[in-house]
Amino acid sequence: MKKVILASQSPRRQELLQKLGIPFLILAADIDETIDRSMPLDAAIADLAKRKATAILAKEPDAIVIGADTIVVYENNILGKPKDNHEAAKMLRMLQGNTHQVITGISVASKDKILQDAHISYVTFDPLSDDEISAYLKTMEWCDKAGSYAIQGHAAKYINHIDGDFYSIMGLPLNLLHKMLLQF
Amino acid sequence: MKKVILASQSPRRQELLQKLGIPFLILAADIDETIDRSMPLDAAIADLAKRKATAILAKEPDAIVIGADTIVVYENNILGKPKDNHEAAKMLRMLQGNTHQVITGISVASKDKILQDAHISYVTFDPLSDDEISAYLKTMEWCDKAGSYAIQGHAAKYINHIDGDFYSIMGLPLNLLHKMLLQF
Repeated sequence: MKKVILASQSPRRQELLQKLGIPFLILAADIDETIDRSMPLDAAIADLAKRKATAILAKEPDAIVIGADTIVVYENNILGKPKDNHEAAKMLRMLQGNTHQVITGISVASKDKILQDAHISYVTFDPLSDDEISAYLKTMEWCDKAGSYAIQGHAAKYINHIDGDFYSIMGLPLNLLHKMLLQF
Repeated sequence: MKKVILASQSPRRQELLQKLGIPFLILAADIDETIDRSMPLDAAIADLAKRKATAILAKEPDAIVIGADTIVVYENNILGKPKDNHEAAKMLRMLQGNTHQVITGISVASKDKILQDAHISYVTFDPLSDDEISAYLKTMEWCDKAGSYAIQGHAAKYINHIDGDFYSIMGLPLNLLHKMLLQF
């Protein structure tokens, strides 16, 4: 049995990967996370996940490495992690009352095989007042989250509908990853 | 500010209600949980949630009481909590490879007002082999779960798609409940 490495520092991904019941180590990839806009978005996110996985595979060639990346997309705008409170408020004003996409790229790589894929989910937010956005910003949950919210936190009450995979929205598409790991 | 009581012993519901950020007490209702099959299913589950809430309201008339109940429905069969391992296996063999409904009834009651509603989500399972079902049964997660699985546990990897509200599937539709509580 090869050792499995999760190439991500995200505590959410670490928590989710535990649900698959396989032991793993964590070794975060330090790579250029620029998204290649010349490709379709889902392919570009899958490619970024692969770059994370293969960066760690280069250091640990006998391992099976999992890379992942998540973005929020609204009307062709990619909403990454907000720089500050002001940018988070701007993103939440875009998302409120609308449906956006959450795309998670996932890659599993060993020296024998590299798989990469992306999963798209649709999330619908309730309309939010400026007061509700201000109150949410005070929870600080927007920090370090693509799109400035965490579906598993206080934003839960504002999310009206999801169509896709809850775990992919959280950052790791467990069903897709499980199927990819079966090939190793 | 009135005190809020959750009329449910479910640790999942207790955990979810914490996400709304309001303090609450727990007082489980001990009522006849028979579902009234003369009503449409969603109305019947909403009614059961109301019966739970009003049973506690009778003891705590100054409180705001939340009642909830969740069922899994596949081809008009109501899948409640399995009696044993054998019944759980039977349910999982029905659900695997198919899409089923999860209906959660929710009620909020005070002496001035009683609200009740139900939320329907759709969950699609991957096809599962008998070996996969046996392995899942060994996790014991099927115990005390409508439909014999927990979406937040080891079954996560087998769930291909959800259309609805993840938290409603877990047992408490946070978005709907939040909107109901705003009326109190």
